[in-house]
Amino acid sequence: MKSNMTTLCYIEKDGAYLMLHRVKKQNDENGGKWIGVGGHFEYGESPEDCMKREISEETGLAAREWRYRGVVTFVSDEFGTEYMHLFTVHGFEGTLRDCDEGVLEWVKKDRLSSLPAWEGDRIFLDLLAKDAPFFSLKLVYSGEKLISAELDGEKIK
Amino acid sequence: MKSNMTTLCYIEKDGAYLMLHRVKKQNDENGGKWIGVGGHFEYGESPEDCMKREISEETGLAAREWRYRGVVTFVSDEFGTEYMHLFTVHGFEGTLRDCDEGVLEWVKKDRLSSLPAWEGDRIFLDLLAKDAPFFSLKLVYSGEKLISAELDGEKIK
Repeated sequence: MKSNMTTLCYIEKDGAYLMLHRVKKQNDENGGKWIGVGGHFEYGESPEDCMKREISEETGLAAREWRYRGVVTFVSDEFGTEYMHLFTVHGFEGTLRDCDEGVLEWVKKDRLSSLPAWEGDRIFLDLLAKDAPFFSLKLVYSGEKLISAELDGEKIK
Repeated sequence: MKSNMTTLCYIEKDGAYLMLHRVKKQNDENGGKWIGVGGHFEYGESPEDCMKREISEETGLAAREWRYRGVVTFVSDEFGTEYMHLFTVHGFEGTLRDCDEGVLEWVKKDRLSSLPAWEGDRIFLDLLAKDAPFFSLKLVYSGEKLISAELDGEKIK
């Protein structure tokens, strides 16, 4: 079978991440939530190719320095399975511009947990904050509810 | 678009990898080559789920300890694009049995480079041998010829 692959990118500046408040698209599976920027792989793209293109398209910025942090296997009974490749970006150039898919805003990392987001996002945001080595996280949802989580093949929820 | 995702697993024992000599399937894109065991993701599988299932199906062994080593973006003008998730497995149980897809053989690591394989395999086998941290390697082929390689987004060939 073929799979849905995406990148999810957290651009960092002064203790904040550039977050996208998804309030512009109709029928958005992320509607109302705050997420990083990113999107689907195009043909022949590596994870880095997709990360750079999506950041450019959604923010106008050019990623210069980054870390590839992990792969999240997101399994949903509503939206199917998606493989999200997580990056943090600590070096970039250019000027931020508006995004078609939501409102971009720099959010201090300690405020992130108070914003509407997918329940399992806290798990990988914690791993990023703890500077964890490359991780593989599997998150299984029933609707909005996180029903199981595995980190590197070990059950954690 | 949706993508082809596979695992590629190097099971280790006494300085050797368990290699699969692909001589059993007709019209095999890997025909005649020596590769690790592995195969396509099934629905909802994490990289670890796929790795464990493929190792069980192809060798009869149960993986107990492993390291997730990298993602290879394999781009071919003949076979399309495939995302190969690389694992090394250093702990396993069970008894080796025959594989439908080829002949299994323990091959000492220093003999690997003399066997027919994809040209770019040497690059990631070297990274494994050097104990490189998690890597993202993009390999672009025209037929059997490797025409470009990028490591973590940087051109190396």
